[in-house]
Amino acid sequence: MADFEQLKKAILYSMKDDPFSSFMGIEYLEFEPDRILARIPFKKDNKNVYGTTHGGVLYGFADIVAGVLACSRGKVCTTSSGSMNYLSPAVSKDYIYCEARIIKDGGRLVVLHVEIKNDEGKLLDDGTFTLFKADMDIINS
Amino acid sequence: MADFEQLKKAILYSMKDDPFSSFMGIEYLEFEPDRILARIPFKKDNKNVYGTTHGGVLYGFADIVAGVLACSRGKVCTTSSGSMNYLSPAVSKDYIYCEARIIKDGGRLVVLHVEIKNDEGKLLDDGTFTLFKADMDIINS
Amino acid sequence: MADFEQLKKAILYSMKDDPFSSFMGIEYLEFEPDRILARIPFKKDNKNVYGTTHGGVLYGFADIVAGVLACSRGKVCTTSSGSMNYLSPAVSKDYIYCEARIIKDGGRLVVLHVEIKNDEGKLLDDGTFTLFKADMDIINS
Amino acid sequence: MADFEQLKKAILYSMKDDPFSSFMGIEYLEFEPDRILARIPFKKDNKNVYGTTHGGVLYGFADIVAGVLACSRGKVCTTSSGSMNYLSPAVSKDYIYCEARIIKDGGRLVVLHVEIKNDEGKLLDDGTFTLFKADMDIINS
Repeated sequence: MADFEQLKKAILYSMKDDPFSSFMGIEYLEFEPDRILARIPFKKDNKNVYGTTHGGVLYGFADIVAGVLACSRGKVCTTSSGSMNYLSPAVSKDYIYCEARIIKDGGRLVVLHVEIKNDEGKLLDDGTFTLFKADMDIINS
Repeated sequence: MADFEQLKKAILYSMKDDPFSSFMGIEYLEFEPDRILARIPFKKDNKNVYGTTHGGVLYGFADIVAGVLACSRGKVCTTSSGSMNYLSPAVSKDYIYCEARIIKDGGRLVVLHVEIKNDEGKLLDDGTFTLFKADMDIINS
Repeated sequence: MADFEQLKKAILYSMKDDPFSSFMGIEYLEFEPDRILARIPFKKDNKNVYGTTHGGVLYGFADIVAGVLACSRGKVCTTSSGSMNYLSPAVSKDYIYCEARIIKDGGRLVVLHVEIKNDEGKLLDDGTFTLFKADMDIINS
Repeated sequence: MADFEQLKKAILYSMKDDPFSSFMGIEYLEFEPDRILARIPFKKDNKNVYGTTHGGVLYGFADIVAGVLACSRGKVCTTSSGSMNYLSPAVSKDYIYCEARIIKDGGRLVVLHVEIKNDEGKLLDDGTFTLFKADMDIINS
């Protein structure tokens, strides 16, 4: 099976053409075997009518980051379920950050936690995602 | 307090400038006191790298529709928590539909169910959203 | 593989010795391939300090009913995740009812909805359970 | 308003007669303003037909611990929603532990995380509970 660095490269490459990621402006800052830190700008396109980051954007951001991290285990993964708790209004100066961590990598299911924070490190939201591993390698060669 | 038709008009008007709604292409087809039916196109921008509708787009679509429906009760509402179960790959011919229903309208919390279906009426996903009613009227006049 | 009637009998038989089911007093009223209706008494043991049915009892009741229904598909199933929304105080005259339905029976995951009602048919709570099918038949003969 | 030590005493006293707590055998080991550590025995009454701790018992245990912690903020709290992810079979030598933490104490909603571990400190399950604060003091004097 491919090693972590190869998988990382292949997954991030495949995400370059993802329109929803581009809309939100996701940037991957740190990408380790069990953890990703990423960010999106606190910009107009990501805001709702109240001027805070859209709950759906926050979830979509977290879902993508969780999915990228789960896929780095080598198998094609799809989200089976996701949930988000909105704790504080998602306002920031420049960026909104998402940190995803793998809590359990089972035979078939990968469970991840996500935390959404602002520039000052304030916890805004948290969530849980469960992904299902398909019988298909990310790198099939 | 404003009546349902006034509230409906005010909420839909405020959503016209919502960038995330525009990105997804949300259209409201039916809007009743307890229920909304809306749709988004099954288009490139809404798809993930597997060619199915993005899980985050489906959630964002549902969150917005649920929020619009909850707000039609007269108070400004924000999502307190949301969850989605992905049941089948979100493929369709032309559109993806979301039907939201109010299950409970309590003093402070509104609980809604959503169902996501394709053109053939196949259930693709379902979810639950809980919204918190702020002490602020949608129409303050 | 065993037929539905055999599976039903085997599962209900195995549950006869389940101490938590006995504590709550679960009775199975209707058991169809996609749906179970069951009840527990509205009794002291099931109540919390506020005099309503315990949230944990309601969840436990629903989890067991969902599990029994999922297992009737023939494979040993274990709960992968469960969630419950508490909509109204769980009071009744005599019984609290749980109706579980299979929403999706995938290759590996079974997703079920549950509704908790009182004697008057008022919806008190709803929930979702996801069960994982093990590689083991309920009836291995 | 009552101080933390008074509230703690009052809440634990009121839980002494809770039949579901007694069934499970909950013991409170540590009780701080933001955190509780409690345990239940790994005993026959708490086990399902597979010999692991019942998913409903684990949830009920966590729900009660989360509720006790939320109430220690001074207001009567009721669970609005709860969810649990079952990560590994809940087996232990002697006890199953639950640690609950307050993640957000808002005006009306308290959000808590729970982790369930065995004697060896292995994470078995995690969950999230949202409680609603009623307009009623725990100690009304």
